[in-house]
Amino acid sequence: MKVAVMGYGTVGSGVVEVIETHNKSIANRTGGEILEVSHILDLRDFPGDEHEDLFTKDFNDILNDEDVMVVAETMGGVNPAYDFTMKLIESGKSVVTSNKELVAQKGLELLEAAERNGVNYLFEASVGGGIPIIRPMAQCLSANNIEGVAGILNGTTNFILTKMIEDGMTFEEALKLAQDNGYAEKDPTADIEGFDACRKVCILASLAFGKHVYPNQVRAEGITKITLEDVSYVSSANGVIKLLGQIKKIDDDSIAAFVSPAIVFNGSQLASVNGVFNAILVRGDAVGDVCFYGPGAGKLPTASAVVADMVDCAVHVDRRKTFGWGEGAEDYVVDEKTVLKMPFYVRAKAGCGEIMARFNDVKFLNRKGQPSDEVAFITDSMTENELTSKLENMDVINIIKVTDY
Amino acid sequence: MKVAVMGYGTVGSGVVEVIETHNKSIANRTGGEILEVSHILDLRDFPGDEHEDLFTKDFNDILNDEDVMVVAETMGGVNPAYDFTMKLIESGKSVVTSNKELVAQKGLELLEAAERNGVNYLFEASVGGGIPIIRPMAQCLSANNIEGVAGILNGTTNFILTKMIEDGMTFEEALKLAQDNGYAEKDPTADIEGFDACRKVCILASLAFGKHVYPNQVRAEGITKITLEDVSYVSSANGVIKLLGQIKKIDDDSIAAFVSPAIVFNGSQLASVNGVFNAILVRGDAVGDVCFYGPGAGKLPTASAVVADMVDCAVHVDRRKTFGWGEGAEDYVVDEKTVLKMPFYVRAKAGCGEIMARFNDVKFLNRKGQPSDEVAFITDSMTENELTSKLENMDVINIIKVTDY
Repeated sequence: MKVAVMGYGTVGSGVVEVIETHNKSIANRTGGEILEVSHILDLRDFPGDEHEDLFTKDFNDILNDEDVMVVAETMGGVNPAYDFTMKLIESGKSVVTSNKELVAQKGLELLEAAERNGVNYLFEASVGGGIPIIRPMAQCLSANNIEGVAGILNGTTNFILTKMIEDGMTFEEALKLAQDNGYAEKDPTADIEGFDACRKVCILASLAFGKHVYPNQVRAEGITKITLEDVSYVSSANGVIKLLGQIKKIDDDSIAAFVSPAIVFNGSQLASVNGVFNAILVRGDAVGDVCFYGPGAGKLPTASAVVADMVDCAVHVDRRKTFGWGEGAEDYVVDEKTVLKMPFYVRAKAGCGEIMARFNDVKFLNRKGQPSDEVAFITDSMTENELTSKLENMDVINIIKVTDY
Repeated sequence: MKVAVMGYGTVGSGVVEVIETHNKSIANRTGGEILEVSHILDLRDFPGDEHEDLFTKDFNDILNDEDVMVVAETMGGVNPAYDFTMKLIESGKSVVTSNKELVAQKGLELLEAAERNGVNYLFEASVGGGIPIIRPMAQCLSANNIEGVAGILNGTTNFILTKMIEDGMTFEEALKLAQDNGYAEKDPTADIEGFDACRKVCILASLAFGKHVYPNQVRAEGITKITLEDVSYVSSANGVIKLLGQIKKIDDDSIAAFVSPAIVFNGSQLASVNGVFNAILVRGDAVGDVCFYGPGAGKLPTASAVVADMVDCAVHVDRRKTFGWGEGAEDYVVDEKTVLKMPFYVRAKAGCGEIMARFNDVKFLNRKGQPSDEVAFITDSMTENELTSKLENMDVINIIKVTDY
């Protein structure tokens, strides 16, 4: 079967490589059919690349090639990926993607178009890189009511936090190391401010609860305010700070969904996820907690998820997979600060007496070199708004959510 | 769609419960169709059970009901489950199962029969209870060459080992607690001798490498020889002892597959899997290591996996899933003792000098209360046969494999 690849960056070139090196395992799954890359779309030149005769700068070469049944979109960004994907779907081709931004922004429209046109739009690689998560979640869904999802969804920030926790690096030092290692972009904003994780939360929430969630509905807080002092306090309570995407069912018509630093206690499966690895925990009413762990990014891991989707399209060429979700609503995602109760970590310039006068029940933490005018503590369960009002007029240095995962 | 359940024990009664309480999520996946349990086969009586009018002691009531399209077999054991399953498949019904013994012994025949008859035989619940593992592994397989699989596949033994490691209980005390909690049978042989894990290794190996592996081809060593002294030595090296099922590709025509206690170092995803939880790590050439974690047993978790398979059958009623494997061979599973090189933990009545005279490079371990005539150490990488010959005539107390996971 002829296939095409749009975008010859890290993931796209990995897709071509995995297809070429895994003919045998692909044929095992398709019942004998192999995939043959017939076009690679990229505006850049790749002189000397062994696939030179496959390159095109004209999208129409793919759109108009009737033999191409499946296209991998690994371009990233909403434009022109959206336009290209829609045209391919409307011309009866299946599309698979690693482009989380596009799925988070336009997934509903593209899935509906795929349904109308009897083709597939699959996006396993858009969340968790190489970790199979989209299909296992769909599987869990059929005999469970999902109660919540929590994930370490961004390898760059998890690498930075791991270096802070394990090696005592400052945020700035760890970010520099991540950039030197190629884990972080020159402009790291999308990672460290939580925007990348936010897109993945949108996709997981849409799938888990059946209604599209858009990035502007999900509050994203990054890791730039986390200091070694916080890491040290949390460590004294046997916990670690992770950047988590969290989704919780509120009722049949609303969910909470947000990205923020969060404290996970040792013993949780999420606590031992280190470096650039990702993990996604799904809590179902029948199965309990299941957790999926693996490389959240990287050329070949992500490419292997894209190719698995291409194989799935090849197997299901005459039949749609039943993935998808419906229209969302503006008030579908609630303000978690007013609704969700949880414990919080608070660090402030204050004395213990002042804290005990305001809170019924707190657990004080300590760190080496703690100044006498600084306290850190974990509260009992309350909403963030309740917390804020209790802390009124106090010199608060940092607040971090505490998870129940 | 009408369905039937054979065996109304823990899992079977959970299947009926999950079907009845999850109509909505089931309908979401099937496109509107719900499952309706029309027969429950069990030789026992359940006076007062609310499903009284569904019970039958006659298998033919299910076999001859043309409206029943999908049957859950949760009886356990090879007979009469094999006979019943074969007859159902031959009459054009799909069967799903949690029965690892049957899949390990007769999976190939039943899968071939399902293929001949255009129906499905699915077994997600046979490995890892509620953890989605069979389908994600099939997915990984399509764009990866699997290099190895390692799993904590038995919750009972993991509970016992966890109690030994965390609470300093002896094996006997921990076993007693497991029995009191209902995690271990009155006759715990199948769990503690590794036979249960062995069956799951057969299923995973058959799926991962495409040829049926039978239980008599997989050496199973249980946890009865593990003592608190071993736990303590291993802890000094920042490791834990787990009962692992391991499968490794040797070449295109052979694999190693075995169950044994094994040392996992902290930092591994397998090291933090505690209590009755299970985890399965899959190593692929493109994706690297992915790991699936969750409850490995229990009524509702396992039932939710069975029901997910039933839903899949309902969705694919006119189309077979492409799961399966081919015939095995007697020499397909090699003797890992002669082929696989790895480090080993050794505890012996000996002095350090004696050990250093026999081994090039060992790491000595220590424990509180260590007798002066006892040593424990980790060797460099070698085959178990090489190790045995190096230890000739020495008073060896215990040997434990060390993993590279």
